[in-house]
Amino acid sequence: MERTCLAIILAAGESTRMKSAMSKVLHPVAGRPMISHVVEALASASISDVALVVGRDAEAVSAAASTGSVTVTSFLQKERLGTGHAVLAAREAIARGYDDVLVVFGDTPLITAAPLKEARDGLAAGNDVVVIGFQTPDPTGYGRLIVEDGTLVAIREHKDATEEERRITYCNGGLMAIDGRRALDLLDRIGNANAKGEYYLTDLVEIVRSLGGRAIAVEAPEEELTGCNTRAELAYIERLWQQRRRHEMMLAGVSMIAPETVFLSWDTELAQDVLVEPHVVFGPGVRVESGAIIHAFSHVEGAHVGAGATVGPFARLRPGADLGPKSKVGNFCEVKKAEIGAGAKVNHLTYIGDAFVGAGSNIGAGTITCNYDGVNKHLTRIGANAFVGSNSSLVAPVTIGDGALVASGSVITDDVPADAVAFGRARQEIKPGRAPVLRERYEAEKTAKKKVKAAD
Amino acid sequence: MERTCLAIILAAGESTRMKSAMSKVLHPVAGRPMISHVVEALASASISDVALVVGRDAEAVSAAASTGSVTVTSFLQKERLGTGHAVLAAREAIARGYDDVLVVFGDTPLITAAPLKEARDGLAAGNDVVVIGFQTPDPTGYGRLIVEDGTLVAIREHKDATEEERRITYCNGGLMAIDGRRALDLLDRIGNANAKGEYYLTDLVEIVRSLGGRAIAVEAPEEELTGCNTRAELAYIERLWQQRRRHEMMLAGVSMIAPETVFLSWDTELAQDVLVEPHVVFGPGVRVESGAIIHAFSHVEGAHVGAGATVGPFARLRPGADLGPKSKVGNFCEVKKAEIGAGAKVNHLTYIGDAFVGAGSNIGAGTITCNYDGVNKHLTRIGANAFVGSNSSLVAPVTIGDGALVASGSVITDDVPADAVAFGRARQEIKPGRAPVLRERYEAEKTAKKKVKAAD
Amino acid sequence: MERTCLAIILAAGESTRMKSAMSKVLHPVAGRPMISHVVEALASASISDVALVVGRDAEAVSAAASTGSVTVTSFLQKERLGTGHAVLAAREAIARGYDDVLVVFGDTPLITAAPLKEARDGLAAGNDVVVIGFQTPDPTGYGRLIVEDGTLVAIREHKDATEEERRITYCNGGLMAIDGRRALDLLDRIGNANAKGEYYLTDLVEIVRSLGGRAIAVEAPEEELTGCNTRAELAYIERLWQQRRRHEMMLAGVSMIAPETVFLSWDTELAQDVLVEPHVVFGPGVRVESGAIIHAFSHVEGAHVGAGATVGPFARLRPGADLGPKSKVGNFCEVKKAEIGAGAKVNHLTYIGDAFVGAGSNIGAGTITCNYDGVNKHLTRIGANAFVGSNSSLVAPVTIGDGALVASGSVITDDVPADAVAFGRARQEIKPGRAPVLRERYEAEKTAKKKVKAAD
Repeated sequence: MERTCLAIILAAGESTRMKSAMSKVLHPVAGRPMISHVVEALASASISDVALVVGRDAEAVSAAASTGSVTVTSFLQKERLGTGHAVLAAREAIARGYDDVLVVFGDTPLITAAPLKEARDGLAAGNDVVVIGFQTPDPTGYGRLIVEDGTLVAIREHKDATEEERRITYCNGGLMAIDGRRALDLLDRIGNANAKGEYYLTDLVEIVRSLGGRAIAVEAPEEELTGCNTRAELAYIERLWQQRRRHEMMLAGVSMIAPETVFLSWDTELAQDVLVEPHVVFGPGVRVESGAIIHAFSHVEGAHVGAGATVGPFARLRPGADLGPKSKVGNFCEVKKAEIGAGAKVNHLTYIGDAFVGAGSNIGAGTITCNYDGVNKHLTRIGANAFVGSNSSLVAPVTIGDGALVASGSVITDDVPADAVAFGRARQEIKPGRAPVLRERYEAEKTAKKKVKAAD
Repeated sequence: MERTCLAIILAAGESTRMKSAMSKVLHPVAGRPMISHVVEALASASISDVALVVGRDAEAVSAAASTGSVTVTSFLQKERLGTGHAVLAAREAIARGYDDVLVVFGDTPLITAAPLKEARDGLAAGNDVVVIGFQTPDPTGYGRLIVEDGTLVAIREHKDATEEERRITYCNGGLMAIDGRRALDLLDRIGNANAKGEYYLTDLVEIVRSLGGRAIAVEAPEEELTGCNTRAELAYIERLWQQRRRHEMMLAGVSMIAPETVFLSWDTELAQDVLVEPHVVFGPGVRVESGAIIHAFSHVEGAHVGAGATVGPFARLRPGADLGPKSKVGNFCEVKKAEIGAGAKVNHLTYIGDAFVGAGSNIGAGTITCNYDGVNKHLTRIGANAFVGSNSSLVAPVTIGDGALVASGSVITDDVPADAVAFGRARQEIKPGRAPVLRERYEAEKTAKKKVKAAD
Repeated sequence: MERTCLAIILAAGESTRMKSAMSKVLHPVAGRPMISHVVEALASASISDVALVVGRDAEAVSAAASTGSVTVTSFLQKERLGTGHAVLAAREAIARGYDDVLVVFGDTPLITAAPLKEARDGLAAGNDVVVIGFQTPDPTGYGRLIVEDGTLVAIREHKDATEEERRITYCNGGLMAIDGRRALDLLDRIGNANAKGEYYLTDLVEIVRSLGGRAIAVEAPEEELTGCNTRAELAYIERLWQQRRRHEMMLAGVSMIAPETVFLSWDTELAQDVLVEPHVVFGPGVRVESGAIIHAFSHVEGAHVGAGATVGPFARLRPGADLGPKSKVGNFCEVKKAEIGAGAKVNHLTYIGDAFVGAGSNIGAGTITCNYDGVNKHLTRIGANAFVGSNSSLVAPVTIGDGALVASGSVITDDVPADAVAFGRARQEIKPGRAPVLRERYEAEKTAKKKVKAAD
């Protein structure tokens, strides 16, 4: 029979050192709030009951934590009297009765399912408390895990540690699994007879041992336990996240010429044999099919890029961009809420918004779909194999038929039937020999201006 | 009473290894000449009298050093006979009589006020010479500081050091403070009886001791003493500078998703709760207010970005761009010498130069302010809540009134009154069924061209 | 007399871990196939006879290896029975009789001429086998080179090594030089009496010793021997390549503010006193002359940038772009197959394709050369000192004469004589007070739409 589990996420910190108008757990990593990553790790460890201990920005934090299949109950922490006290803010949830209680932090978004599962396995094996620790080359400042014969004997704070204990590189990561049936009893035994008068969750190790129980430690990679107190640490966490995901993608068959310059979102999907050139940013909601190339300096968000399509350099795909197979969106082009048909080309200096571009059509340089009248957005429909000449304005709502041809520089306000040619431009006039006259006049103006300035 | 101080900046190097058409101290770090950083460090250590020892590009170097409140006198070093000799090029300045003389280098731009002050404190405490040193994990090649009981006994060059001395990791940074009243006397005692026949400033340590005086060393971070001999080292210094400033900014409440891809200028000001996305370059003269977002791939120079405004992705703000609160400048937009009013939007493929855009106005995609006639620049004034349709050309000087509406694709040469609608585009014509005829003709041309080629 | 040499490149790997539709040796580093780098290293070590052992994608691999002055003969490896067996796929080439046989890998593209020459020197000095090794801080997993009195006694696989041997940090790089006159005899003696039943090239060391011959090892930097099995390793190799080339360029007098954000191609040529700002990508075929500045966010490929010219920020130069001295191509500009004359300016939001722009001409913002009719590309010729007003469309084929002036917003379809002024835009019309009426109508439409939605 499967064991039940309650995860308690501590997310009530003041985030003072973030110097921010919002709680740190709301700050995004890979495009979504830090705390959502923690919840996702719980979900992928098959934990679906979450007690969220919140303080600042309680509502927004609860909302950010309520992702996916997880049921979240929020508890407000009113006083800040230490981690042991914080956990008890969720007393009501713990009292429901679970096999396992797992305490995690809202600001360690790199945690994965593996150590969470291992900690729960430790409870299933009969231990009362399981602490998640990490090995680090420089343990200065961390609490050391004192392990004897496989048993966790104590967590020794750096300042209390002996010289010998300070050489221990196995440290307390803060996350902890507690026997759910005994959790309330154990937590209530934590006292505050210490210098700061706070209740420390780490005291559980000694408490459980004093009661004849057993604590152990399980190890997670140091990276997974990285916490966030400043925006510099936030950037560091983002970096670790990006490195992890890029590496996974490359091993799965995605080419990145300079992975350190490519920024992914939490949900970016890149198929095998996709090539991502240097300097690319993916916002949320992107799916790129096999054989597509994302050229340098591209910004892609909420978009689908079909097989063999090419994007950029200097392209921006905004939400709702849907590029057909082997289509091209080139430099200084923006595509928003628009389908680009198979093999269609939008190559230069173009804005395609609220539009359909048919397969095989070619949109000339500088074309603009004029989709907005200041109040409403209107649709532009371009058929298959149409040709829109450069620098044209397509004033929506408007339809260009299959195979139609729009002359360069045209303003198109009326529908163009299939196979028609449309013009919308003025006849050219020439004034021979006029340029030197104009230049002379401009130069005179310049001189006059200077004189005015000098006279000031 | 405050002690007086003369700083001597040695900046006469030939810069041969830079392979450059200008002196290395003129090469920029964070957008301004290396030597200006040194002068700024002096100024922030409350030192205002500077003797500059120059060689190559003397005039430009003097100009670059003359920033802020510092008084700079330049001295030409004619021969290159070692650092001791170089300092004496400023004999006239030293002879004015100062409490402290501080010798620094023009090519160590990362130096800060702290070690300079500490060195001067050392003089104030009665020492005759204070050497600024640094700790380094790999001291190979550096002169070692031999310190006994708090006294600097000698500076031992690597090649002259014993095995034991080579294990010393405390090294000579080159910068030095000298008792100003004795400086000339001490400097004149430096001899050149050595292999190269040069005068070494480091000899002062032994000289002062032989006269019964006392030298000490004070420590600066190794980074601050990084010197520049090649462009690779210049890039390394730039990197250290950028890391330092980014870190300071993040601790002060600026979010950077990928700080390593953001490049700041020496004077960039970013307020708390500004978000800077990956791949952003700040030129000089930028101030960004709280809550603003600088999206990826933005290039911002000489610009003010108001609170809550958003810039980019792919935006370029040039000098004189002044963005009002909550305004937006979007992709492939360039703004130069222009005010963008509160809440106004310049979202796509637009050039706004020499212009005023009123609050709440919307500038359509592809709009160009035609501000230049080849000789003079002219102004475009757009009122509040105006709407400029896409792909319009506003031929300056021209005024668009409040609430006015310019139809897409228009060329506007005359002023548009408030609340008026302006058109300036040709009527559209359609030639049904004409496209296939044209395509056939084009294909025939293509075939003809190929035949000509084949015949060649 | 010069010694003859046959290089055998092993390039028959299945590349399974690359998860790729093509052989790993075809994956590009610095813009050209990995294997081409290996061939180039051979060529620069004056080796011109190459036997290529291929498997997957044989034809494409052979083509990629056939660069420059090297003569390549391909041999298909049908079975995969180890390196010793793979080399013998080239039996026919070896049998031609060479002084030296050099075995290298198709997936170590960072190898340079130096260690290859040193290995051949080892043969010339009378050794029978020369193994190329490397020093590494963490040798775990590598075969150790057991060297005694300058003789390579054995290559010990990690799993077979004693504790003491495992402390050896001198490892087998896999590349090997063999006495060409004895090579076939030696190679035929390699057996497969081992766990995997494979033929190992490394056995040659013991074989040659058992025959009274002598093997030695020569050292190459670890970096040069980096092999590629996954796309993560491919990215790592690219990184090392880029670091190496950037460093060389900086030492030669090129300034890079942030070299880690600049990506070079194998053939990029940047002259002394070129400045490359952050975030720049060079495709193949670029040559930049002295004093030119490549501003941030530029993408340059197949282009020549003249002395003192400036490119970007946000510029794209495509193949055939040829920028004259002191010309400028600015933000959101694309230039393809076009000459930009000395001092000419193409500053904003412009597409210049299949064109000539004369010296001193100014191309206004938003100008588009409409070079394509959907079938053929046509030329635009702009004379010297011409002025093309903003947002103009130049419909090719068309010629703008010297000193001519094109009014902003014009569509130019006919040639403009020298010194003429050309207009091609509609007269502006104004409808006073009309904007509020239109807005009201648009708002009504909006309301109507909402009602329809609500009714759905």
